[in-house]
Amino acid sequence: MSIDVTSEATHAALLALAAQTRELMDAVLATGADDDELAAVTEELRALTARLDAARRPPVEFGEPRWLLGNAAVGAANPFAPPVEVEYPPGGGVRAEQVFRPLHEGPPGLVHGGVSAMVLDHLLGTAVGVAGRVGLTASLTMSYRAPVPLGVLVVATAEYTRSEGRKSWAEGRIALPDGTVLVEATGLFITPGWLPQEA
Amino acid sequence: MSIDVTSEATHAALLALAAQTRELMDAVLATGADDDELAAVTEELRALTARLDAARRPPVEFGEPRWLLGNAAVGAANPFAPPVEVEYPPGGGVRAEQVFRPLHEGPPGLVHGGVSAMVLDHLLGTAVGVAGRVGLTASLTMSYRAPVPLGVLVVATAEYTRSEGRKSWAEGRIALPDGTVLVEATGLFITPGWLPQEA
Repeated sequence: MSIDVTSEATHAALLALAAQTRELMDAVLATGADDDELAAVTEELRALTARLDAARRPPVEFGEPRWLLGNAAVGAANPFAPPVEVEYPPGGGVRAEQVFRPLHEGPPGLVHGGVSAMVLDHLLGTAVGVAGRVGLTASLTMSYRAPVPLGVLVVATAEYTRSEGRKSWAEGRIALPDGTVLVEATGLFITPGWLPQEA
Repeated sequence: MSIDVTSEATHAALLALAAQTRELMDAVLATGADDDELAAVTEELRALTARLDAARRPPVEFGEPRWLLGNAAVGAANPFAPPVEVEYPPGGGVRAEQVFRPLHEGPPGLVHGGVSAMVLDHLLGTAVGVAGRVGLTASLTMSYRAPVPLGVLVVATAEYTRSEGRKSWAEGRIALPDGTVLVEATGLFITPGWLPQEA
């Protein structure tokens, strides 16, 4: 069984399903329902899971233009992904506005440092891609200057800085809308032999 | 409206709900259901979300012994968390076995570098805590030596290495069960003034 993920209608239906699943995740974390209701909802979720599992689509192949739909950071069809919505400013680099949710909590009321790392790892890699390079993260250095709050708009940006052979570097940060930098990152990305060279 | 999260029954019900939600997330990503079925399941999820939202519990306060239940990395009641299940080997440090799922994908078939960063950030911080220190991540350096595969058991470990005043360092890695290191991390953790000093 497979579905046509190139169909616009299917694409929209998958995105709506993932978006609703994210809202469910938020509700699961915050619910004050009593034990009987928790158990009843769990049983209904089990049935819905089985309905979705009744038909599986094949794993999306690399090269499939929509494979990023399932990506852990930016995948709009992946309920684990926040998702990071990458913008491409005319001046270069990449940008994403983000409001982190309670699901992303590390210290109470604050974003988990690892979630900030996931967002910046992805944006730095994307900035390298935008510059015409393709690479996997070889190293990533995160510097946490101030806690990132939950529930508040923050802005993540990243830029490609330079290349040497198969190595490319990028840097980025998460900041408040007024420009106050909360977290900084630098990364080295290397083009593996099995990935197409775009540069 | 609040619930008694110190009740064992409620605790178990919240964990079962989160676990089932994770299975739903897996199914959402992999489903090959047709558009009508996707829409129908989405509508049922909307109704279940509303049922859970009908009663909200207050945010868990810091100091509450179960606040880690909602943590983005280890929170058993948080469907976003894999969750990382931390073990405390008698020889010291911390350890976690992990089988990453398609939800955690970055490059096709491989774990997103940011997800590896989230797991190691958390384990390094926990290793610092196990050593009797409390700290938030100040810096984290990730070194990606080889891709981390999806769907295969890997083992993450971390150890506290040293302290100077309010600064503590730790290191860790994700490896195959045979010991082959795939990803390494080193981190600096600083005890902020508002956190209790345990050392």
